[in-house]
Amino acid sequence: MKIMVIFSGGMDSATLLYHLRDKGHEVVPIGVDYGQRHRKELGYARQFCEQMGLHYRLLHLGQVGSFLKGSSQSDAAVPVPHGHYAAENMKLTVVPNRNMLMLAAAGAVALAEGCDALAYGAHAGDHTIYPDCRPTFIQIMREAFLNCDWKPLQLLVPFQDWTKGMIAREGIRLGVPYELTWTCYEGGEVPCGLCGSCTERAEAFREAGQADPALRTVVAYPVI
Amino acid sequence: MKIMVIFSGGMDSATLLYHLRDKGHEVVPIGVDYGQRHRKELGYARQFCEQMGLHYRLLHLGQVGSFLKGSSQSDAAVPVPHGHYAAENMKLTVVPNRNMLMLAAAGAVALAEGCDALAYGAHAGDHTIYPDCRPTFIQIMREAFLNCDWKPLQLLVPFQDWTKGMIAREGIRLGVPYELTWTCYEGGEVPCGLCGSCTERAEAFREAGQADPALRTVVAYPVI
Repeated sequence: MKIMVIFSGGMDSATLLYHLRDKGHEVVPIGVDYGQRHRKELGYARQFCEQMGLHYRLLHLGQVGSFLKGSSQSDAAVPVPHGHYAAENMKLTVVPNRNMLMLAAAGAVALAEGCDALAYGAHAGDHTIYPDCRPTFIQIMREAFLNCDWKPLQLLVPFQDWTKGMIAREGIRLGVPYELTWTCYEGGEVPCGLCGSCTERAEAFREAGQADPALRTVVAYPVI
Repeated sequence: MKIMVIFSGGMDSATLLYHLRDKGHEVVPIGVDYGQRHRKELGYARQFCEQMGLHYRLLHLGQVGSFLKGSSQSDAAVPVPHGHYAAENMKLTVVPNRNMLMLAAAGAVALAEGCDALAYGAHAGDHTIYPDCRPTFIQIMREAFLNCDWKPLQLLVPFQDWTKGMIAREGIRLGVPYELTWTCYEGGEVPCGLCGSCTERAEAFREAGQADPALRTVVAYPVI
C-alpha cells in the first residue's frame, strides 16, 4: 500500500515510518505546521527523512495557531507545564481539535496524491490526556475517511493499543536512529527533561530497558 | 447558543447566518482560505459581515491548496467545468477532503473561543457531486465533534435536507442582501454564468420565484 504518514519528527511517528516500511509498504511522510511551540521538531523531521532517503513534505497551516488560545502548545502566553502526563495541569497541552485538523489536512493531500491509506502514531498512553487520541475518536475518524471522498481512504493507527515502551522496543529492533528525533515540548537548545513529553520518553526507554540514543549527544536529558 | 458559522461569502452560508441569528443565536462568522480559485468570495464575505455588524475572521490555511492537485477549485492548471452540477465533469470541482478540513480548522477555533456549536451550509443539492456533503459524512462528523475534545461541540447543518430554492426563499423572507454575496467558481470581474455554481444559483432563484438581487448590479448573470 501507498501510505501517507503524519510525521512530527518525534519518536512515535519515527518508529511508525520504520514499522510500516518494514511491513513492505511505500511510506510518504508529511509534517503539519500548525504554529506549534515545539516546531523545532519539524527541522528534525526533515533530517530524519533524508537519512531514510525519503522526501519530506511540510504542510504549513498558516496562522491557524494564532487563533488557538489557551493551549501551551500553540499560545506563547501559556507556559509549558512540567511533570507527568497523568497530572491535571497537562490538559494545558491540549491543542483544540489538533488531531482532526492534522488528519484532515494530511488526508486531503493523501487523497490528492492517490494514497491508499493515512497513518498516524497515536498510542495507548496518549488518551489519558488527549481527547482526540481516544479509541472512540479514532474509530469515528476511520469512518469519516471511508466516506469523505468517492474513493475510501483507510486510516491506520497501528500503535493504538501499544504503550510507549512497546514503541521504543519496536524502534530499537528496527534500528530507528532516535538521536535524530525530537520530543521535548519546549523547543529549547536541548530537551528540558521536565515537560510531560520528556518525562514520557524517559519512561518509554526505561520500560524498553535501553538508554535513549539521544543521550549520547544531548547530556541534559535526565534519563535512567 | 454561541455558534461559529463557516461563512464563504456565498448565498448558502449568508442565509445560514441570517437564519441562525433569526432564531436568537449569537453567530460568529469564520472564513477559511484554503487557496481556492474563487477567493474573490472572501472579500465579499468581509463586506457582508460588516453590514451585519459582525467581526469577520479569516483563517488562512497557508499553502495547503498547492498540494491539492487535480481539482479545478484549488489547481490553477485545471479549468473550471461549465454546465450543470449533475454532469459527470463537475467532479473536477471536488477539492479532496475540503469539508473535513474546513470543519476541522473552524472547529478548532470554535473550541478555543468557547462556542457551543459549529454550523455550515451544506444542503440537499450538494451531495450528488460532493462526497463530503452526503448525510452519512455529515453524521460521522457530527459524532467526531462530540468526541474531539473534553467538551462536546455540536455540529449544526440546518439546510441538510433543503433544496437551494428553499434556501433562497428563506433568505428572501429574512431580507438577506444577496447582492453582497459571491457564488461564481471562476472569480472573474462578474459571475461567469456558466459554471455549476452560477447555474445552480440561477435555478435556486427561479425555484423561489424571485429575481437574483445580484442582477441589479451585475448584468452578466443569465438568470430567469
